[in-house]
Amino acid sequence: MTAASFFFSLIVIFGAAKLFGEIAERFGQPAVLGEMIGGIVVGVSGFHLIDPHAPVLKLLSELGVVLLLFLIGLETDVRRLISVGGPAAAVAITGVALPFAGGFAVARLAGTSFPVAIFLGAARTTKTDRITARVLSDLGHLHTKESQVILGAAVIDDILGLILLTVVGTLAAGERLTALAVGKVTVTAFGFVLLALAAGSVLAPRLVALVTRLRVTKALFFAALMFALTLAWLAGQAGSGLIIGAFTAGLVLARTDRGPEIEREVHNIAHFFVPIFFVLVGAAVDLRQLTRTDLLIGALLTVAGMAGKLAAGYAAPRTVRRLVIGVGMMPRGEVGLIFARIGMAVGLLSAGLYSAVAMMVILTTLATPPLLRVLLPRAEREEVSTLSSVVTESVADRAEDDGTSAM
Amino acid sequence: MTAASFFFSLIVIFGAAKLFGEIAERFGQPAVLGEMIGGIVVGVSGFHLIDPHAPVLKLLSELGVVLLLFLIGLETDVRRLISVGGPAAAVAITGVALPFAGGFAVARLAGTSFPVAIFLGAARTTKTDRITARVLSDLGHLHTKESQVILGAAVIDDILGLILLTVVGTLAAGERLTALAVGKVTVTAFGFVLLALAAGSVLAPRLVALVTRLRVTKALFFAALMFALTLAWLAGQAGSGLIIGAFTAGLVLARTDRGPEIEREVHNIAHFFVPIFFVLVGAAVDLRQLTRTDLLIGALLTVAGMAGKLAAGYAAPRTVRRLVIGVGMMPRGEVGLIFARIGMAVGLLSAGLYSAVAMMVILTTLATPPLLRVLLPRAEREEVSTLSSVVTESVADRAEDDGTSAM
Repeated sequence: MTAASFFFSLIVIFGAAKLFGEIAERFGQPAVLGEMIGGIVVGVSGFHLIDPHAPVLKLLSELGVVLLLFLIGLETDVRRLISVGGPAAAVAITGVALPFAGGFAVARLAGTSFPVAIFLGAARTTKTDRITARVLSDLGHLHTKESQVILGAAVIDDILGLILLTVVGTLAAGERLTALAVGKVTVTAFGFVLLALAAGSVLAPRLVALVTRLRVTKALFFAALMFALTLAWLAGQAGSGLIIGAFTAGLVLARTDRGPEIEREVHNIAHFFVPIFFVLVGAAVDLRQLTRTDLLIGALLTVAGMAGKLAAGYAAPRTVRRLVIGVGMMPRGEVGLIFARIGMAVGLLSAGLYSAVAMMVILTTLATPPLLRVLLPRAEREEVSTLSSVVTESVADRAEDDGTSAM
Repeated sequence: MTAASFFFSLIVIFGAAKLFGEIAERFGQPAVLGEMIGGIVVGVSGFHLIDPHAPVLKLLSELGVVLLLFLIGLETDVRRLISVGGPAAAVAITGVALPFAGGFAVARLAGTSFPVAIFLGAARTTKTDRITARVLSDLGHLHTKESQVILGAAVIDDILGLILLTVVGTLAAGERLTALAVGKVTVTAFGFVLLALAAGSVLAPRLVALVTRLRVTKALFFAALMFALTLAWLAGQAGSGLIIGAFTAGLVLARTDRGPEIEREVHNIAHFFVPIFFVLVGAAVDLRQLTRTDLLIGALLTVAGMAGKLAAGYAAPRTVRRLVIGVGMMPRGEVGLIFARIGMAVGLLSAGLYSAVAMMVILTTLATPPLLRVLLPRAEREEVSTLSSVVTESVADRAEDDGTSAM
């Protein structure tokens, strides 16, 4: 690829991301949805303006994914999370287990091979909370009990989903699917996170103190970035996922006293790389390769996943409106898409099946905000819940970052 | 290249840039010099930790160059520049013509081919003013007449050098060296700048007004970035250099009312990409391929270039200390290196000759700050000159960006 054609690809990617992101926002949808749809328009199903399989674009989108997971890690506060307690954990664990079982059953019934079924089952289990948090904040419902359970569960959900993603991704990359292999990969993933958290808690404050004495420009930002890339690389060397390293780096640095500053700096650079990932997700969708079977599997997976998340709402105590929690858990977010890309990269998912999974993410994302708006009328406001309001606060910060005002 | 090895390369690049940048700053040298030396240490002459010819790294460094020229354009104010007037223009034109003639003569005497001689002559003519401005600011000499002539001439120098670079670069890329070809390329380069400035003056304010009404995150930054990439791409399509398009985009946007804001945003992202360029410049230096002839040519070019710039100082009026101006014009900066990279990419410069040119940039850059410090003792302060203080102000802004305080 020449420099001129590289620049042309960047113009197309950012143009599609921002034009369709703007349209999505005007329709009350998250910008990320517009980025994916923009990708479909300029990609292999549309005007063929970019090649989603060009090596340099793929590497930049991988960097976007790592920065995204680094940011999610930076926005997660492990200790405070624990204080949100039981209901969130119950909803999260049920919300991973049920869609996994449902997705797996659907895939097996549809006749896909055993590893593909495991993979599709897992792809249904992960979500992140940005979209829901944004809608809850728009509706002025951030401080209800239901919202706090949804947002607390979403964080636990991310962690469980990420480890599951790593396990399945590593297996997909070649290892035979034996109980021993699953055990080894699971222990490696958990072990890496725990070891990195332990070592990081000791090393990170020293690193931050050292960096503070440097004169060179943006020393803190580059130290944080190199820390995240190094942990990602180490996780890869240890036989785990790159993204799990980046996520763990975020968890570690969030606990240092420069955490908020690092988050701000990483946000700045993530704004550049993350849209590349979402546009490529859309650009790789190949509608002509979608067979009827792919569509059927996609539709059934969507139903199974939504049903599983809805049912997970009922793992919450009776005192809250469990249907609201179930709906709030539904949208398939960023992590699910990362899943789908890995699946296609290692050859587990065909182009058609990949397209079905990506379309399903787009549709579920589209459906949630209107559903939540129906279930939670704007006029109705409940008393501030007795649960810790910490999750709420951090979400309010996040909503501000996105340019919306919290209540 | 896999994602893991890409991340490893980034860790090495940013590590080398920041570690050696820090060391350079501690020794009173510009950070960019440390970045190049860091590149030599981790590159083909050192530990072989990165491959400076890996396609993805080359494309990212091209993006760094385009962002750098975009920034230089954003920091240049065409109309105010004209008011600095005659002395600066005289120094600039002499400062391009003499080193060009000297470099060309040296190269021909050393027996290189005619196009290579033209190229090496041109490579000696370009410089940017950051390093000198920084030193002048450190010494508290920003407001002297000499400084204003140096800084005014540096801007004109950049523009002339850039056009010369484009002409030679285009010729180097394949066209035969006839008077017609030189004329065509020169007219194209000048024509592109003038046309883009005229069209941009009409379109840019409308674009900025449109972008202000968008809701999507970082709309202004992405609009500016896409504008620069589009002009770069168009310049390439028109048969001119990509960098001349990016530079012109900067000139155009600097004249809109959101210019300073755009500059700030572009700075943020340039901090990521520009060091990749400088580290790769160093990493591509191959000391084992340096022949005695290369070293001789490099040394003679350095002498010819420095002598030419020194002599250019004497194009200034007698009322200022012309030796100071001559020394201030000496350092070979970013544009000279871009030149050398292009020369190697199109096959005009051998790895050895490229290494000689890069070393020469490093040595001249190293020599200037101590020389200026000798010529301008810190204690001595002159009255503020009667020339417009505009150049001074913009340099003071720039020095603040770099973390130093202006006087």
